[in-house]
Amino acid sequence: MTLTEAKDNLKTLQEKNAAFMNAMALIFYDGATTAPKGVADNRAQALGVLSQESYLLSTSRQTKETLEFLDSNKDSLDDHEKRQVRLLLKDIRMMEKIPMEDYVEFQRLMVKADDVWHKAKENNDWDSFEPILEKVFDYHKKIAAWCAPDKKAYDYWLDRFEEGLSMEACEKFFSTLREHIVPLLKKVQEKPQLDDSIIHGNFPVAEQQAFSYELMKLIGLDLDHVGLSTTEHPFTTSIGSHNDVRITTNYHPDDFSNSMYSVIHEGGHALYESNCAPELAYTALDGGVSMGIHESQSRFFENIIGRSRAFCEYIFPTIQKHFTEVKGTREDLYRAVNRAEPGLIRIEADELTYALHIMVRYELEKRIFADELEVRDLPRRWNKLYKEYLGVDVPDDRRGVLQDSHWAGGNIGYFPSYALGSAYGAQYLRKMKETIDVDECIRSGNFGQIDEWLRERIWKYGCLLTPSEVFRNAVGEEFDPTVFTDYLEKKYSELYDL
Amino acid sequence: MTLTEAKDNLKTLQEKNAAFMNAMALIFYDGATTAPKGVADNRAQALGVLSQESYLLSTSRQTKETLEFLDSNKDSLDDHEKRQVRLLLKDIRMMEKIPMEDYVEFQRLMVKADDVWHKAKENNDWDSFEPILEKVFDYHKKIAAWCAPDKKAYDYWLDRFEEGLSMEACEKFFSTLREHIVPLLKKVQEKPQLDDSIIHGNFPVAEQQAFSYELMKLIGLDLDHVGLSTTEHPFTTSIGSHNDVRITTNYHPDDFSNSMYSVIHEGGHALYESNCAPELAYTALDGGVSMGIHESQSRFFENIIGRSRAFCEYIFPTIQKHFTEVKGTREDLYRAVNRAEPGLIRIEADELTYALHIMVRYELEKRIFADELEVRDLPRRWNKLYKEYLGVDVPDDRRGVLQDSHWAGGNIGYFPSYALGSAYGAQYLRKMKETIDVDECIRSGNFGQIDEWLRERIWKYGCLLTPSEVFRNAVGEEFDPTVFTDYLEKKYSELYDL
Repeated sequence: MTLTEAKDNLKTLQEKNAAFMNAMALIFYDGATTAPKGVADNRAQALGVLSQESYLLSTSRQTKETLEFLDSNKDSLDDHEKRQVRLLLKDIRMMEKIPMEDYVEFQRLMVKADDVWHKAKENNDWDSFEPILEKVFDYHKKIAAWCAPDKKAYDYWLDRFEEGLSMEACEKFFSTLREHIVPLLKKVQEKPQLDDSIIHGNFPVAEQQAFSYELMKLIGLDLDHVGLSTTEHPFTTSIGSHNDVRITTNYHPDDFSNSMYSVIHEGGHALYESNCAPELAYTALDGGVSMGIHESQSRFFENIIGRSRAFCEYIFPTIQKHFTEVKGTREDLYRAVNRAEPGLIRIEADELTYALHIMVRYELEKRIFADELEVRDLPRRWNKLYKEYLGVDVPDDRRGVLQDSHWAGGNIGYFPSYALGSAYGAQYLRKMKETIDVDECIRSGNFGQIDEWLRERIWKYGCLLTPSEVFRNAVGEEFDPTVFTDYLEKKYSELYDL
Repeated sequence: MTLTEAKDNLKTLQEKNAAFMNAMALIFYDGATTAPKGVADNRAQALGVLSQESYLLSTSRQTKETLEFLDSNKDSLDDHEKRQVRLLLKDIRMMEKIPMEDYVEFQRLMVKADDVWHKAKENNDWDSFEPILEKVFDYHKKIAAWCAPDKKAYDYWLDRFEEGLSMEACEKFFSTLREHIVPLLKKVQEKPQLDDSIIHGNFPVAEQQAFSYELMKLIGLDLDHVGLSTTEHPFTTSIGSHNDVRITTNYHPDDFSNSMYSVIHEGGHALYESNCAPELAYTALDGGVSMGIHESQSRFFENIIGRSRAFCEYIFPTIQKHFTEVKGTREDLYRAVNRAEPGLIRIEADELTYALHIMVRYELEKRIFADELEVRDLPRRWNKLYKEYLGVDVPDDRRGVLQDSHWAGGNIGYFPSYALGSAYGAQYLRKMKETIDVDECIRSGNFGQIDEWLRERIWKYGCLLTPSEVFRNAVGEEFDPTVFTDYLEKKYSELYDL
């Protein structure tokens, strides 16, 4: 094999990978937005075949020979090629440890589990979900044992979603959060509650949809390359490249703010994904580098920007334009969307209590992976932890252990990245403010400078840098969760007059 | 290779084919319904790779060896396997004649042409479409020359969409239609026109959508397996198997009947597609056998059922329920939806003039394939033929040569099957009436017996029989287009009091 041939093979391999990713992402996306209800088996059938073909492609002798050859000729590669080879080899070496039938079976299982979960949640029927969730957890344990036999299973999965993350790091991070958030929440709860009546009413879905598109344009999304659909549990996915990204939302006719913050959150993901450098398309470097960095974008837009006073000031007239029944002031909106209150539902949680929801899930995942908890005992333990961390009683599994799609979708070990992402954002803000009048930009609806800052320091790199390199590259210092807790303490002290 | 191995290979091959079809159909469907506007290149990229993979799979040595082996052991195969091997071998032998790069390039070209056409139509800009359409026609000529060097190019493509169809058969068929339809239309035009004001007004899209779902259920579609989306040019596609079928429509806010008949037409396709025998799923026998038989279902439901007096009687109260501004009588509706009038737009044409629109396209396609007409002269010749056949002046290309998606989508040679399908339907009706009180079934909104008749004689066979076998199996006699012209003469004589 000559170097030129190997480089050609590398390019072709990545284009093929991208096409399979395109097909599989689209099948998933269609299933969650558009597909008729009864076709999950058909989807599983197609995904089974496609994941098998993609597995065969990735682990073929030609692929391995190409990558090993390039790896041993590193000096002749540019930075992009070096990183591509590194990431692809890492994946292959991992994949090879999973027997192909198990790899395919695992893909099929996710599709079925997702379908079973949807129905189980709808019918508040944990029993129908339990057996398949048990299989999902078992597969996660098996895969961890195959791929990283010398690691604890949960550490393996944490690292899969956020390179470098471990239980040790999580424990430290969560204990800092706990130290600050629990007493802060206690003080907040002793004060009179903020009034959020302004966000409630009757808001037609068609109008909410028009508002969604306006929000997407406002934060800087290119609607020619970013689509919007409706689903039950909002998510963002790219379809084979950063040139085609889809966000989703869910409209609550009695509360416009629900979809509004979904759109801003998913819009943050889409900004990150779609602002990858153009030359990274159809390569292993395309798209966001990790879930933590991804959530740091989405939660930055949703909370740090979206729930700021400046944003409420800017967006209030637009809200009144779409929903004429909204009265009151910009300040009423600011207070309403920042009302802190322990609740049952993670995705409806405010900025302050959000991390507590994550900690419940972290504890449960940790214990299952350590064989200290059985899947069948999840609902009981879930309810217990909600009482302990948030002080609320869970009335049914629909609003309890069945609420999230993550476990059914095979995203076990993903949750901590949400909390991590929130914390990263506070540090971005502090850094950004050194050179940009962030509040003034937001107050005037001008996202150009903010997007530019993020694009140049984070977005454009795709997977060229590791998550920790991206973070350090953006802020020029190490991660420090107290920047986030300081931000919360300042914000909520002012809001609740502590 | 043992027989058991070969049969296993056959099953696996067909499952893989189905998965690739699933992905490619979904990419196309998403592109026409949901995808953001700027992502056609991304789609072309993925389709290029997937069609190449699927080509490699189909023409691989293992595939060929398997099929040749089974073909030489026909006696050990059941009827299904025999037909599967026959169809797959036929496809492969054809595919092998097309160089792979051309096969892939052709797939990519279709995606781009479709995108260019959309914009060209929107901007009434023939010049931007002409160069790519020229390429599309050239590819069709090349493919015909590769695949069937001893056939005329147009005969090759006619046969691709309708096995056995040829220019000779078309000329005979169209001349019978012309003989009857032209004088009939002349007489109609001498009479006072029917009033169609009942279908015009202001009909909110959301309400039209609710009505669409009611129509789908009425004709017998299973909404758990058949989805409905919105698009510019309505079409139906199955997603990898008959278990997942999608229909599309386009709502005109000023005319409820437009989408109503789209839904019934596409619903006819979906009934055919989704009522394939369950055991045909993930095999080469799944789905409708030809475009002619497909259109004979869709146009049977749209016109013979949907524009019957009985159907108007049944559906009128439902229409009034959804669209309260609709006044008048059931008979007014019947007359409005059967108003015959030469017009510019094929998909808006009535049952009587419809075939004349097809004949224009047939003439043009025929002449291009015979090198008697250049693509660049299409608009002029289109307008000339519209004047000649329908007596109308074409004011612009958007309402002329740019109106249909077929050529851009690579469906050249498809149009005649529409006219053929219409004619088949009249013969089904005559046969069906021997055992079923069709009018009474329709008048009472009871489609069970009609669907059963079609399922048992047509739908369930999928591709197990050839198109002509399906037709003869259904009606027990040869095709006779005068049954259709008799039907038209009777219907329009009564409507226009000739």
